[in-house]
Amino acid sequence: MKKVCTIGGGTGNFVVLRGLKHYNLDISAIVSMADDGGSTGILRDELGVLPAGDTRQCVVALSNSSRLMRNLMNYRFENGSLMGHSFGNIFLSALEKVTGSFEKAVEELGKILNIRGKVIPVTTQQVRLKMVLNNRKVLEGEKEIYLSQEIDKGYKSIFLEPHPTANPHAIDEIFNADAIVIGPGGLHTSLIANLLVEGVVEAIVKSEATKIFVVNLMNRRGQTTKFKVSDYLNEMVRFLGTDVFDYIVVNNQLPPQELIDSYREEGELVENDMADERVIALPLLGEMVETFGKDLMKRNLIRHDSKKLADVLTKIIMKVDEPCYSSLI
Amino acid sequence: MKKVCTIGGGTGNFVVLRGLKHYNLDISAIVSMADDGGSTGILRDELGVLPAGDTRQCVVALSNSSRLMRNLMNYRFENGSLMGHSFGNIFLSALEKVTGSFEKAVEELGKILNIRGKVIPVTTQQVRLKMVLNNRKVLEGEKEIYLSQEIDKGYKSIFLEPHPTANPHAIDEIFNADAIVIGPGGLHTSLIANLLVEGVVEAIVKSEATKIFVVNLMNRRGQTTKFKVSDYLNEMVRFLGTDVFDYIVVNNQLPPQELIDSYREEGELVENDMADERVIALPLLGEMVETFGKDLMKRNLIRHDSKKLADVLTKIIMKVDEPCYSSLI
Repeated sequence: MKKVCTIGGGTGNFVVLRGLKHYNLDISAIVSMADDGGSTGILRDELGVLPAGDTRQCVVALSNSSRLMRNLMNYRFENGSLMGHSFGNIFLSALEKVTGSFEKAVEELGKILNIRGKVIPVTTQQVRLKMVLNNRKVLEGEKEIYLSQEIDKGYKSIFLEPHPTANPHAIDEIFNADAIVIGPGGLHTSLIANLLVEGVVEAIVKSEATKIFVVNLMNRRGQTTKFKVSDYLNEMVRFLGTDVFDYIVVNNQLPPQELIDSYREEGELVENDMADERVIALPLLGEMVETFGKDLMKRNLIRHDSKKLADVLTKIIMKVDEPCYSSLI
Repeated sequence: MKKVCTIGGGTGNFVVLRGLKHYNLDISAIVSMADDGGSTGILRDELGVLPAGDTRQCVVALSNSSRLMRNLMNYRFENGSLMGHSFGNIFLSALEKVTGSFEKAVEELGKILNIRGKVIPVTTQQVRLKMVLNNRKVLEGEKEIYLSQEIDKGYKSIFLEPHPTANPHAIDEIFNADAIVIGPGGLHTSLIANLLVEGVVEAIVKSEATKIFVVNLMNRRGQTTKFKVSDYLNEMVRFLGTDVFDYIVVNNQLPPQELIDSYREEGELVENDMADERVIALPLLGEMVETFGKDLMKRNLIRHDSKKLADVLTKIIMKVDEPCYSSLI
């Protein structure tokens, strides 16, 4: 069975994993430990635990348990002192307290949710993502960086504090993978946040895996304003030290004009400016959701289709035209 | 397999169930819904859920899952906005929110924790336990009653508000049981709290089950001060309308004098004043724990031994001298 290692965090990772789990693949998801917003941030501050949110999303994405259990993990309390907390975050944090180890907690949650594959924190050290802008302003934490509208004016540096070493299990997975999938996800907050961990870049560069970069669908205004595919690639290469990618997966499907218009304030579609033969351009958009759910932010309306994305990734990974879609789920 | 139905709530119930689960019995635990203290009370007030604490204890008592999972369910957060909450209570409350039903939530938690038997709320209505003292003072809620030091001066009435009807599943279990075990537990707050639910007394009286009353080891000062076995029985009969018990299980073992002395402020040992042939008097004390654990209250030092208690109950239920101790656990 081919070993696939995804590197990321947040919703982008969720979409990739939810698709890949249907295929006959040995999946390991390396997750950023930079998240410090919302429920995750409160639990970090109050309990001293590692960030639960992104990890929980990966575990749920890979879960083969009942819909009830998956809904439970994503359930957010709506009242009182628990308001805003995701139950799954509380679950992971309690497990970390009881086991004494975040990694062990993730493993146990994986068993309870009957996951296909493994979810592995990129580091087990407590870190904060920080960014120094060109105007010398310091952005403290992943949330502050994610919400900043000034990053597109340039930054001097981005780093994790204290500088962490990688979780050896994450390094093993990267080394031993047949394929590494990076993206989609917040460019600095979810993707580069992993590359800043000591040992990760070296492992990616040295690994003989097929390396695939999945480029985001949309730019974020103030962050990656007017970025084209080459800009995403260049930013990644800046941190990787070299262009390691064998494939660059981009979307070439246009959403309806009304939807593009409604996104104007938040960002625009990422245009492909590369003729490189590594670029695989395909229609990858998910069905446009018309209704606005409670937890569904507007930007989520334009998103990758799990199945289409997993399909192209699996074709690349298996080097076949018709990937073996598993009937397991 | 003999069907045993326990009726109670709180730690007393936990001790009975933890013992009984090792025997070849079909167990259903009917749990009081009056609890409103601590973590349970906060979740009730803030989320509008049914009381989780006693139910969680029963589920953990019957669980055959790993020690880790059982520790997790009883884990209490020590900091921040979750401080004092038991994780298991939060788990049950989140499950109630996601399933829309407390009973369904208990069932799901039972599956996750791989329980032997069933745990059934005595009612699925939101109620408060109230007591009107002889001095006309009204005690509002199970916690206030539990902490009162005036109940031994007499009370006019005790009731659940609003007056609830029983959960039909609880009634079924009582009717169909081969044996009903009531106690040990807080006399008014855990035992009588069940009898106040419309339909429960009628079901107990009509049931052809062998009815066993397990009398508490210790009195609680201000509540059951100087109560003897006959006082416990009389108080139960007052609410049952008739003396239904076939067996009355009492302890005849004396703890060390130092321990009795150290309890003087809280209450004294319950003396047996009945020569009734229904009374089974045996040494039933658990090992005296010398150290004071974080969650171990002093009164818990003198408690029933799960195994000894389950052993006598099983002998009664199976009408044999050597009950079939299961090697399952």
